[in-house]
This record gives sequence, structure tokens and C-alpha cells, in this order.
Amino acid sequence: MTTSVWPDGAAYVDGKYMPVAEAAIPITDWGYRRSDVTYDVVGVWGGSFFRLGDHIRRFRQSMRALRLDPPESDDDIRQVLTECVRRSGLREAYVAMDCLRGVPKPGLPRHPVNCRNYLAAFAIPWVWVMPPEVQQRGAHLVVAKTPRIADESVDPKVKNFHWGDLTRGLFEAYDQGADNCVLLDRDGFVTEGPGYNVFTVTGGAVATPDRGALQGITRLSVQELCGEIGLDFAIRPMPAAELHAADEIFLATTAGGIMPASRIDRRILGNDRPGPISSRLREAFWAKRAKGWHATPIDY
Amino acid sequence: MTTSVWPDGAAYVDGKYMPVAEAAIPITDWGYRRSDVTYDVVGVWGGSFFRLGDHIRRFRQSMRALRLDPPESDDDIRQVLTECVRRSGLREAYVAMDCLRGVPKPGLPRHPVNCRNYLAAFAIPWVWVMPPEVQQRGAHLVVAKTPRIADESVDPKVKNFHWGDLTRGLFEAYDQGADNCVLLDRDGFVTEGPGYNVFTVTGGAVATPDRGALQGITRLSVQELCGEIGLDFAIRPMPAAELHAADEIFLATTAGGIMPASRIDRRILGNDRPGPISSRLREAFWAKRAKGWHATPIDY
Repeated sequence: MTTSVWPDGAAYVDGKYMPVAEAAIPITDWGYRRSDVTYDVVGVWGGSFFRLGDHIRRFRQSMRALRLDPPESDDDIRQVLTECVRRSGLREAYVAMDCLRGVPKPGLPRHPVNCRNYLAAFAIPWVWVMPPEVQQRGAHLVVAKTPRIADESVDPKVKNFHWGDLTRGLFEAYDQGADNCVLLDRDGFVTEGPGYNVFTVTGGAVATPDRGALQGITRLSVQELCGEIGLDFAIRPMPAAELHAADEIFLATTAGGIMPASRIDRRILGNDRPGPISSRLREAFWAKRAKGWHATPIDY
Repeated sequence: MTTSVWPDGAAYVDGKYMPVAEAAIPITDWGYRRSDVTYDVVGVWGGSFFRLGDHIRRFRQSMRALRLDPPESDDDIRQVLTECVRRSGLREAYVAMDCLRGVPKPGLPRHPVNCRNYLAAFAIPWVWVMPPEVQQRGAHLVVAKTPRIADESVDPKVKNFHWGDLTRGLFEAYDQGADNCVLLDRDGFVTEGPGYNVFTVTGGAVATPDRGALQGITRLSVQELCGEIGLDFAIRPMPAAELHAADEIFLATTAGGIMPASRIDRRILGNDRPGPISSRLREAFWAKRAKGWHATPIDY
């Protein structure tokens, strides 16, 4: 197949392919102006998608929850994502899919039910949520004072761009010289950070919050790894105090995999390095991926 | 001055003017991907801006709160907005100004402090949040079950596109055959609706919520009108029950002025028509505007 190759990234917007630098959202679109949009991100590593089916399944659930209905089927979406990666030529890529509300159709009242929904997607060079050197030494985290947006207002299981609270948390971390942050809900339970799930390791058992957080696909991978290694794994309420008392903390996201932390607020974890169980999970994660775990190879 | 005229709307994005149909936000921009953006909207009616200085002042406060710092000064913004209206040729226009986070500068870590912020603006034909016929009969409202995003998570005084809760409320209204909605906070106090402040009239006194709501410029106009007419006006906590017990309800926004309601949930207000005080305020509002109240004429 002969197509242009766009190594800075390839995009698809509402039926058309283009270099990512040309991909844009109309300034009047409610996907931007009301953040009335859902999205998902799947990773490509070594020329293969990771858990592509899981990401498309979650993306469809998110669209249904927001009553978004683009013309593309799940199979179409799979093809669009593959085509974006192909046209980028990238072997390691961050691949996003968005479904936007659009604008009301001409002559119809200004209401979200009257909008023409559409799909956008792009593949760009791999993005690390935390730079590799931060992952090596362990992330320095703060517990932000800004509470996470409540689940009842905006469902965190429906992946969304309502990042105002997370961005405030990022500034809190910056002002304290830390790398990143963890947000609590208004009742003082741990939720998540900007783009990742949060995990504690205490007495050899792994836990992650049951509220205020995305049902991460990498979180699911952590759960599977814990099962294989024989570690207890629980999704349950996590009081903030547990974070400060944990033996280890690590984070998980598509754009970074399993990322150990070494500091939380003023507390140094272990010997100020990634903890042994976090490191073991991280190594197992990448080793299994190199062997084709949950991989969908791309035909470039 | 000879310039193109774009009657569908004129826009300015990051230093350049264009027809609004060409104005777009890069798909990778954090202003879209993290809704890391603030905005304001000023109205043009009869060829004049309404309270232009107040809107630019609030916009600057919002930018400061989010640590956004575009190159344009307040005077520059005034000129950009004026130029957008001039190039549209519109006498009645909805004029928006956005400040977006942008993306991290090349080579710098992926953090909002490292982004190049920029300004976008556009003037399009006047938008009514409620169609004139709905304003005539009075809006039918529901109190949404979805709670407003808490002030501590995302400050509602900083105008933002975090509309997930408001959009859910719009669907709740739609499913019940109503026009629009009012959201409560998690403690059961009235906040605001999608794009407007909410007011009650009880025993001749006007009140509006002190929390969960934008400090509306049209709300300020309502306050001034109440002072002139001699009506009590209070910004204070408003329990949901007050909404259902009120003599009258009305809404206020730039894109609609003062808009009476005639129904709230299953309750019919008055004689199912706009109440007398709401109507009087609405008429006074438009009469004063026709006489140049707070007007900044545009030199087309």
C-alpha cells in the first residue's frame, strides 16, 4: 500500500486523514466549548497495540454513557487507529481516539441531542507521563489540597477532559518541587492522579482506590500480574493515611506503564528508590509486553 | 478601512484573523485535551458592546486564577474583540474570548508551567440561550439530580468549559420534556444552570445563590436594576426548597439577558406565564440597553 508517511503523527478527523499538525477542532464545537467529549488512549510498543480490544470496549462504554453516537463501528475504529499508526510509521506511539458532541444541526434547537457526533483519532510519537529518569529514581508526589471532582458530578469511569482539578494539583506539586500529585475526594479517600491510577503496597499486598478513578486498562494489567506473581490485589476504599503509611507506592497508565514513586509529601519511601514489589511488577510488565502479551501486531 | 467582511462570523486565533469557520484548536492542545482554558462572552446589541470593560476585567481575573498569561494586554483584547465584530459586520453578536494553555514548549517537561498560552476570540451572530418564544411563555425548568461540580474542585467564578454536569442536567431536562435545568450542590443548595445565573422572587424580594455559580455580569445588571426600581436584592445561600416555594423564577446571562421561567419540576409558577417582577426587570433591561446603558459603540 502506498500512502504518505507522517512521522510527526497522523490523524483522522470526521472521516479524513491528515498530518497531526493539521488536525484541529472547530472553535465553536461543543467538544471543546463544553468539553462534551470522551476519549481513550491505546499504546503501541514494538509495532503492536497493547490491549486494543479493551480500549475500544471502554471507549464505546464511555460514548454510550454520554449518549454519543458517531457513525464509526468498533471495527471501523480499529481500522482508523491502525491506519493512523501505519501512516505515522511509528513503532512506539501514543494513539488517541476522541468522540466529540459537535454542534447542533442547522435549524434544530441548541441542545446536545441535536448535535452531529463525530470521531477524531491520532497517533503521535510515544508520550511518557513521567520521564524515564523519574521512573528510575521514583516519582516525588504530593497529596493535593484540591479535591477530585465528585463522581456524582462527572463520572471518572467515563474518560474525560475535565482536568481543572488535576491541573490545579499539578501546580501544587510544582510549587512544592515535586513531580506530580494524587487527589483525594471530599471525604479524604484517595482517587487518582493526572492520567494515572494510584497503588499502595503494604505488607506485600497491593491495593488501589475503588472511587474517583478511571477503571484503568493498565490497572487491569497490574491485577493480572499480581495474580500471576501471587500477590494480594484489592480495589477498595483507600483513606489518605494509607498512602502515607504504605511500604511502596506506584502509579499505572497507558502512557508510562507501571511507574514507582519514592516520595509522598515529606515522607521518603523505603530507601528513596522504587520499592522491590513495584520494581518487580514494572519489570514483569515490560518483559511480558516484549513477548507479545495482549499484543495486536500492526501490518505496516 | 478596507477589510474582508465575514457575516457568518470572524475569529482571531493566536495572532491571526480568519472567518470563524476556519478557526480551530489543535487536537493536541491542552486547552482542548485538558479543558485547560478560560473564557468570557460579551454581547453586542445594536452595534454596541454591553459592559465590555467588566467582561475583560473578569476574563483577566480568570486568566490570573489559572496562571494563564497570553501576550495580549487588556487594551489588545479590546481591539481584537472590536476587530472581530467589525470584520463580521454584525450589529447583534455573541463575542467570545478564550485563553488556552497551549502545549509544552519544545524540549521542556510536560507541565502546564511550560506551555505557551495564547488568545482566541470570535464574533458570531447573536445566540439566544433560550429561544425568544420560550422567554415569552416562560422557561420550563427541572432541578437536576446531577450535582454541580464543587467549588473546591473547579472554581465556578473562573469561567470554564467543565460542562459535564451541566450537560447531564440538560439531558435530564430533555428526558422530562422541559427546556432547561438548575443544578444543586451536594448540600442541596441552588447553584446555577447551563450558562446562566438563577434568581427567585419571593414577597417582592430578589435573591440569587452565593455559591456554585459564576459572578455573572448580567447578574450585576440585575442587581443595579433592582436598586433603581427599589427591590430588595440578595446574594445568599438558597436551599432547593426556596426554588419550589418562590413566587417567580428568572434566569440571567449575556446570551439572553433576563429570562423568566414559568415552571419548575411539576410546579406551575403564577399563571404559567412570566411573573410580573421578572417581566418588569426584563423590559427595563432591554429598554435601558436601547438607550445606551453601559454601551461601547463600535466604529464599523
